[in-house]
Amino acid sequence: MKVSVSQQQLAHGLSIVSRAVSPRSTLPVLGNVLLATDEGRLRLAATNLELGISCWIGAQIKDEGSITVPARLFSDLVNILPNDTVTLGVNPNTFTLSIRCGTSSTEIKGIDAQEFPPMPAGDLSDGVQLKVADFKEMISQVAFAASTDEARPVLQGVQMTLAEREITLAATDGFRISVRKAELPEPVSRPISVIVPARALSELARIAQDGEAMLTLSAPPGRGQIIFRLDNAELVSQLIDGNFPDYRAILPRAYKTHTIVSTQALLKACRQAEIIARGGNNVVRLSLEKHEDRPGEIEVSAQTEETGVSEAKVEANIEGPTLAIAFNVRFLREVLEVIKTPNLVLDTNDQKSPARVQPVGDESFQHIIMPMHLG
Amino acid sequence: MKVSVSQQQLAHGLSIVSRAVSPRSTLPVLGNVLLATDEGRLRLAATNLELGISCWIGAQIKDEGSITVPARLFSDLVNILPNDTVTLGVNPNTFTLSIRCGTSSTEIKGIDAQEFPPMPAGDLSDGVQLKVADFKEMISQVAFAASTDEARPVLQGVQMTLAEREITLAATDGFRISVRKAELPEPVSRPISVIVPARALSELARIAQDGEAMLTLSAPPGRGQIIFRLDNAELVSQLIDGNFPDYRAILPRAYKTHTIVSTQALLKACRQAEIIARGGNNVVRLSLEKHEDRPGEIEVSAQTEETGVSEAKVEANIEGPTLAIAFNVRFLREVLEVIKTPNLVLDTNDQKSPARVQPVGDESFQHIIMPMHLG
Repeated sequence: MKVSVSQQQLAHGLSIVSRAVSPRSTLPVLGNVLLATDEGRLRLAATNLELGISCWIGAQIKDEGSITVPARLFSDLVNILPNDTVTLGVNPNTFTLSIRCGTSSTEIKGIDAQEFPPMPAGDLSDGVQLKVADFKEMISQVAFAASTDEARPVLQGVQMTLAEREITLAATDGFRISVRKAELPEPVSRPISVIVPARALSELARIAQDGEAMLTLSAPPGRGQIIFRLDNAELVSQLIDGNFPDYRAILPRAYKTHTIVSTQALLKACRQAEIIARGGNNVVRLSLEKHEDRPGEIEVSAQTEETGVSEAKVEANIEGPTLAIAFNVRFLREVLEVIKTPNLVLDTNDQKSPARVQPVGDESFQHIIMPMHLG
Repeated sequence: MKVSVSQQQLAHGLSIVSRAVSPRSTLPVLGNVLLATDEGRLRLAATNLELGISCWIGAQIKDEGSITVPARLFSDLVNILPNDTVTLGVNPNTFTLSIRCGTSSTEIKGIDAQEFPPMPAGDLSDGVQLKVADFKEMISQVAFAASTDEARPVLQGVQMTLAEREITLAATDGFRISVRKAELPEPVSRPISVIVPARALSELARIAQDGEAMLTLSAPPGRGQIIFRLDNAELVSQLIDGNFPDYRAILPRAYKTHTIVSTQALLKACRQAEIIARGGNNVVRLSLEKHEDRPGEIEVSAQTEETGVSEAKVEANIEGPTLAIAFNVRFLREVLEVIKTPNLVLDTNDQKSPARVQPVGDESFQHIIMPMHLG
């Protein structure tokens, strides 16, 4: 292999694929990044066997070829090179990569590209097109509600359903359910229902540029994989096998009390309560209070034996019976952080029934949260 | 106690004193920050018994008093409050601090201020005045060369000597010596020679604002302490007991080869070599090369069994016999990072003798570095 690339593009490409590197794997080649000439461009790739990320950068190719080199070492080196042309060469006998830039020259010991796990190119002929910015927002509103419990792999995933003109993402850790729907630009040719690791979606959101760009999604039947193709990059993730809980059966049909409140004001009050609550039981208590002569309010409070007491009042528009209800303060804060509208509606029934948080005027997102025991 | 303060000033003051908090101490009160009214201002203070930092902020005082509260909890809380007036009150029966700001109110459980270690106010009548910006630069050029080896406490300190109109800072870890001198605005009334923990000086550099401000330094005889007084803040450190090595006896009297080179170019070459060398022996090799027809150069190279080879050439002006010499690459990089002049002079004798790095045109700073064995 002998290619010339721009230092900036190489550094950027490495920052993208590096997220799939597994530096502490028992298989040393998984700590490496693959460099391979590929139809006039240089392909960079890394995989931890569950998640693979590839990236293509423009290159002047003199000789075709490939090699893998330690990802961290190579990235660190490329990052300190000047913003100039970098010439990469492979010695196929010693599996050594030479890196030349200006008056500096480095040789890094690598591993034969043959040992790198095959990363088959995705067949995207029946792929579904999505706007990157929209899909990133969907991920941000759902992925955080997935479980981190290794013992329940299905809950570590996000259920992704595509049918007709609608895509739905849903995640639950057993204490909360986050569901976000969106319309597709075109109806899908066949319905898709898969469980994608939440981590893969979060990585996708991280590497995808914002803006008007589109991505293509494909889940070829029987392959157990999902492929996301971006401009110059591709992310392939193993799917999670199993049955996703039927969360629709749990969603309450109706709510008695509807409370409309400023998203930022409630978020601020929750953050304050969390500082007190995290030292103890993690409970925040919301008291919905109506007044004759002035608007209603939510009293947001927390109290623990160890740290103290916190109280804040937030103006709110309350319809229906008043109520005091308690939540895990982190869970409540996390959903408030992903609501983009100035106001939200909190729908409740009673102290023991699940509550719902929704942006005002946007029914495409709903978040169900189980209350905690009110001490 | 009942006082009103600005949220911004309180947050800033807490960020300063927090550095002296020891959250994992067996003495719980050391994880707390002291709040006490003090001659019309609010004093914040924290100490780990070796290092104490105090800070004074403007306050409207209604009732005098004092309390200590968990530093992390209190800082986190103050940081999320709006930029507004914060009212602090102490309930002396329960040792509880109430914090009110807008519609929010919090009560934090604290510990009686009587349990806080006394932090005697420093007697600064015979203090020495220094320009903050100059002293910060001195610290940055010396403190990094101190040892981190707990077994050799003296080497964890910086020797600070004040005599006549000169102040000298020196530190060594046995492999390198960093010495920086500066002129004092006025002669000192009595000579001072103390060993100050490098960490205390680094904290001082961190909390001191840049600019034209002055600081006052005082080491009252027999107290075993040094006091640095800044605008609205004071840092008190225990001194290190013991004999600082007589580094002057080790300094070479003369050098055979003088090499002048661009600081940034050599630094860049060292960073590249370090990426290769850190995986193995940490050795960087400098080959000083003269040429008949063009300027001389330093070939900077590193090679390890595990990672590979790195080479870069840096133009240099070499006077005296040529030489190949090896250094610990981290040590070399660290001194290059604190040299402010565009060019530096590297003075050498032979492969086994200590070398000297100095800014060109500035003899107030010198750094001696022991060579490594050239493999």
